[in-house]
Amino acid sequence: MAEKFDQLKASINEIADIYNAIALLGWDQQVNMPHGGAEDRGNALATLARIGHQKLTAPETGQLIEDAAVELDSSDPDSDDARLIKVSRREVNKRAKIPARWITENARATTTAQTVWEEARAKSDFALFRPHLEKIVALKQEYASFFEPYDTIYDPLLDDYEPGMKTAEVQAIFNEVRPRQVELIKAIVDRPVIDDAFLHIPYDEKSQWDFGVEVISAFGFDWNRGRQDKSVHPFTQSFGIGDVRITTRFDPDRAASALFSTLHECGHGMYEQGVSQNLRRTPLASGASMALHESQSRLWENLVGRSLPFWKYFYPRLQAKFPYQLGNVDLMSFYQGINKVEPSLVRVEADEATYNLHIMLRMELEIALLEGSLHVKDLPEAWNEHMRAYLGITPPNDGLGVLQDVHWSSGMIGYFPTYALGNLISAQLWDVMSMDIPNLAEQFEQGEYLPLLTWMREKVHRHGAKFEPEELVQKVTGSRIDAKPYLHYLVTKYSEIYNL
Amino acid sequence: MAEKFDQLKASINEIADIYNAIALLGWDQQVNMPHGGAEDRGNALATLARIGHQKLTAPETGQLIEDAAVELDSSDPDSDDARLIKVSRREVNKRAKIPARWITENARATTTAQTVWEEARAKSDFALFRPHLEKIVALKQEYASFFEPYDTIYDPLLDDYEPGMKTAEVQAIFNEVRPRQVELIKAIVDRPVIDDAFLHIPYDEKSQWDFGVEVISAFGFDWNRGRQDKSVHPFTQSFGIGDVRITTRFDPDRAASALFSTLHECGHGMYEQGVSQNLRRTPLASGASMALHESQSRLWENLVGRSLPFWKYFYPRLQAKFPYQLGNVDLMSFYQGINKVEPSLVRVEADEATYNLHIMLRMELEIALLEGSLHVKDLPEAWNEHMRAYLGITPPNDGLGVLQDVHWSSGMIGYFPTYALGNLISAQLWDVMSMDIPNLAEQFEQGEYLPLLTWMREKVHRHGAKFEPEELVQKVTGSRIDAKPYLHYLVTKYSEIYNL
Repeated sequence: MAEKFDQLKASINEIADIYNAIALLGWDQQVNMPHGGAEDRGNALATLARIGHQKLTAPETGQLIEDAAVELDSSDPDSDDARLIKVSRREVNKRAKIPARWITENARATTTAQTVWEEARAKSDFALFRPHLEKIVALKQEYASFFEPYDTIYDPLLDDYEPGMKTAEVQAIFNEVRPRQVELIKAIVDRPVIDDAFLHIPYDEKSQWDFGVEVISAFGFDWNRGRQDKSVHPFTQSFGIGDVRITTRFDPDRAASALFSTLHECGHGMYEQGVSQNLRRTPLASGASMALHESQSRLWENLVGRSLPFWKYFYPRLQAKFPYQLGNVDLMSFYQGINKVEPSLVRVEADEATYNLHIMLRMELEIALLEGSLHVKDLPEAWNEHMRAYLGITPPNDGLGVLQDVHWSSGMIGYFPTYALGNLISAQLWDVMSMDIPNLAEQFEQGEYLPLLTWMREKVHRHGAKFEPEELVQKVTGSRIDAKPYLHYLVTKYSEIYNL
Repeated sequence: MAEKFDQLKASINEIADIYNAIALLGWDQQVNMPHGGAEDRGNALATLARIGHQKLTAPETGQLIEDAAVELDSSDPDSDDARLIKVSRREVNKRAKIPARWITENARATTTAQTVWEEARAKSDFALFRPHLEKIVALKQEYASFFEPYDTIYDPLLDDYEPGMKTAEVQAIFNEVRPRQVELIKAIVDRPVIDDAFLHIPYDEKSQWDFGVEVISAFGFDWNRGRQDKSVHPFTQSFGIGDVRITTRFDPDRAASALFSTLHECGHGMYEQGVSQNLRRTPLASGASMALHESQSRLWENLVGRSLPFWKYFYPRLQAKFPYQLGNVDLMSFYQGINKVEPSLVRVEADEATYNLHIMLRMELEIALLEGSLHVKDLPEAWNEHMRAYLGITPPNDGLGVLQDVHWSSGMIGYFPTYALGNLISAQLWDVMSMDIPNLAEQFEQGEYLPLLTWMREKVHRHGAKFEPEELVQKVTGSRIDAKPYLHYLVTKYSEIYNL
């Protein structure tokens, strides 16, 4: 008998249902919703967010958690039930500090901002988006204030995406990464430029879509529990373990864009699909953190999808689909082309050597906005200055600059660092996995991905959000988040490609 | 100052938001959801239905309605506010009789049943669906019991779709219609058979889709506040006036199927899009009843879409899209082909002369199931017997027989009569409109539909659900629901086509 726990579980299930509904309203907004639906959708999202928040922060919920904790006292602290209590308590305690009024206001502001951002980005018109971003920054500053005292105003925001992680830790890791990547880029820029002209001619959209589907089916994406659609900004959304959806987009000038975005989102999607059924309808039925999530997406996109063994199998298949574009491009030229390093404007199109610098730029601007040392009106210029300082290039317009990411319009400030942390974790996991599965490269050359996916499901996916990110990384790799494996991976890979 | 009314309005808006979210979860379930999502979707729908029900039936809501009614006492009884109070009071009083437990059970049962029905229909396997339908019939019997005393067990169910309407009234109307339609069909069956072979050869799906879009754009469907998708069973769903979605389907053997289903759903969709903005986020932002809704869909599908003036404009355009199929078919042969009368198996494909008989069959079976004089296990045989008696044909399998409609799997028992009532109302509206707009036919021949849509918006659409169906029909046509205009329309049309 676990009466209190069962009551708690019923309440948690109901709250999970509400957040599943919110997730669908959000997914539909980006994939399907006609323009005219924005106002009512904003209202519906605000209402559900308020109801979810009320249920999470109701005194009875807090009391149930404590009663259930007493009931389960002697059990395994790593059991699903014990972890459910722990994670729920953390979430409830955090939520209790946020007024319902703020939740509603934030949901409304971000729903409107997203629609405006789409237009602003298309027109490259920052002035259109500015008042909405000002509102969002003010809301986020207020949000941080609910969690005072903090070491830095960025901490409470980061904590939403990386439970338990501190800004100072991230900055220390980034300070180790930055000089090494800058040094690597300098070395590469001195070498002959790789010719990737064959990637910048038109590729038929339907055939691109089909090839992506072929690859992620081989990876193990479960179509019975998922689907793929198109959207402006590719993303993954789960509505429970049985329905995990990914999106992609097509850019006529960048053939590789849709493919690698499909592989990337597939990595996210397979993580969600791999969560243990036992965690269904609870907040544990999700990734451990955004960085862990990104470790999965970047692993499938880059460590697998931009590797030579992967293309040994798939390149002839791609050539068969695009004989006009690739018939005269040999495997090694293709491999070098998709791994070309070049400081560029758009984060999601950035190569592995420059990607983390895009992230560091955003994190620094976010911190400055929140601390008040930078005003939203000065953001486009600050963006462009950082681009010049970090990558030596200036965006020709704000659409390709400060307006490029969907995150701020959705209120996701504090999220960006997780992308770079994900890169680092992906290499840590890879190193451990390579010891467990010694012939990975041979498997890829045969189109075999089941051993990799099985390992990842066992070590990472099935645990869902039971463990905090640093805890899970420690469990699997034996160390905390560590930049060395990724730096080693980058240097090895590009030394070979660029003959450094 | 209308303090109580404003409080009521805020509460009504919140409830409308919840039902908008439920509508989206339902739409997505039919259009997008992968099979694996069924369980979690069922849970989410059940939870939201329970929350909506709790808010509707909370004692504070009932009290607010009464307080707001006192506050508004002296105002116009037909004002938006007065009608909002009236309709809300009706809904709350009705809902108060339904236990929350029943709502949850019903949502779960119908979500599962819909998934099973899709499979059962595809496999033509009634046994698979039977236990689910038994559960649904039992739930509906229990539902009716909450509203005792009633004249007949069918009354409370019918009232959900036709507020204020009684089973006995519907039966009286149907008793007037049945012999006249049977007589008409007999006369037609004695005439030479119309050749419509050109409709039963393959038509390219993409071109069918494009032609449908061209027509409903001309009708006035607002794409900025709507979209069209594919689904197993075509339907219309609104998530507020700004986002109204229709679906269609393609049947390789029946070229006319997708087109007329698109026109039909467009009629529903334009009704929802035409509701006054003042009624937004309230239960009034919807059609007055299912019969009124069907009057709109059938009007655009049949009175417009199967008329000669319509095709005088659009047939050359259709021929240009399908030169192989229609190049040698002249306008009159095409017109006769799409109006061919032939007793057939599937309701949604039935011609205008036989359609109502499909409805009467379903209503009689529903009443027998609810009264207990027919058991679900005997339903397929009863269905087939009725088909023989009414239309002289026997379904070759249950997929084309008793399993053809989505309604029962969704718990929509009591809904079918509204289809036939809608046919009757469409002709009543047409007769009045034809007096106000004397040159309708000339307009159709030019592809002009704005005057028709404007008239319908002014007379019907903008009122939303402010008035009960009989009240609105009386307001616009000066009489209650009346079979004569429709019977006159049928006899005139088919006398011409069949030279009776």
